[in-house]
Amino acid sequence: MKLYDLPASPNARRVRIFLAEKGLEIPKEEVDLSSGYHHTPEYLSKNILGRMPVLELADGSTISESQAICRYLEEIYPEPPLMGQTPLERAHIEMWNRRMELELLIPLMHAFVHGHPMWKGIRDQVPDYVPVCEKHASRSLGWLETALEGREYIAAPVYSVADITAQCAILMGKAVGVRPTEDQENINAWWARVTSRPSARA
Amino acid sequence: MKLYDLPASPNARRVRIFLAEKGLEIPKEEVDLSSGYHHTPEYLSKNILGRMPVLELADGSTISESQAICRYLEEIYPEPPLMGQTPLERAHIEMWNRRMELELLIPLMHAFVHGHPMWKGIRDQVPDYVPVCEKHASRSLGWLETALEGREYIAAPVYSVADITAQCAILMGKAVGVRPTEDQENINAWWARVTSRPSARA
Repeated sequence: MKLYDLPASPNARRVRIFLAEKGLEIPKEEVDLSSGYHHTPEYLSKNILGRMPVLELADGSTISESQAICRYLEEIYPEPPLMGQTPLERAHIEMWNRRMELELLIPLMHAFVHGHPMWKGIRDQVPDYVPVCEKHASRSLGWLETALEGREYIAAPVYSVADITAQCAILMGKAVGVRPTEDQENINAWWARVTSRPSARA
Repeated sequence: MKLYDLPASPNARRVRIFLAEKGLEIPKEEVDLSSGYHHTPEYLSKNILGRMPVLELADGSTISESQAICRYLEEIYPEPPLMGQTPLERAHIEMWNRRMELELLIPLMHAFVHGHPMWKGIRDQVPDYVPVCEKHASRSLGWLETALEGREYIAAPVYSVADITAQCAILMGKAVGVRPTEDQENINAWWARVTSRPSARA
């Protein structure tokens, strides 16, 4: 196995933390965006969207989309479980993982893409969309604070992929200036808890 | 089991088609948005986001997020499989399902939410974002056409949840005027194939 990686990408980070939690070390090839390799037919045959991360298996077949890669790894390397151990637990972890992705990480990524000068000329930027995304993410932090009351982790009694996605979202939020407030004590305690894990540096 | 449903919602439709493909008939409670029931503490205890669909189990526990509901149903009612039968097939179906959701359905839903008068005053509308979403979805139809070459279904040799998500996206596209072009023959043939299934009317 080999991972086509992009160190700054929140989605690639999700996979790297997942691998670290599984105790897996696999070769990583950092794709240099300035080389344009991700636009070549060779790379597009690995991922038609030309994005990272991509997991390449020994037989040359590839899996893209961070969550699909994590699911494959979970099946092949089930210990420690990061996606649940019963049908209901798996469903709740998927539910929370999606909430953290769709309601927190993606709005924050959109705030970045539509607002940051590095994307000028690369993506169609709509500056008026930035505050809408920021408000969306702030509102999500609001109900996340409520949901975390009395809980150590987001989706289950144990650390799971939903925590990983939320961690990557909070990091993205720091880049665009949307952070948990000081009085969001549950989120702040959770953040201290998850970032104390060695995998947080992956 | 019971489904809190919203007939016009693409996400609720994903679950209804999934249930129909499994041959499952479960009680459905249509939530009347004008009643405000989805904002009550009772409903928010089922889904903190106040959205549909929600699957309620016999013990009163609930699952929200269409994809998490489908995964739970797939585990409890494995036949016919709609999410794959091997780790790699499951990963590819999840990959394609996410592509159909993140690159097609969601941009089209955003085009609708940011552009349609029915959302005025309910959501923060950014009219300039609408053409960006439409362009995003059109580009996705472009690579979907390429990827469907020689294939009957989107993610696997058989019909899967990725086809369901794509179907719901195409329907959403009709509502906002982003449709496959006449020369996108692979998509049009696939559309005829999937909409000929009885489940398409669910």
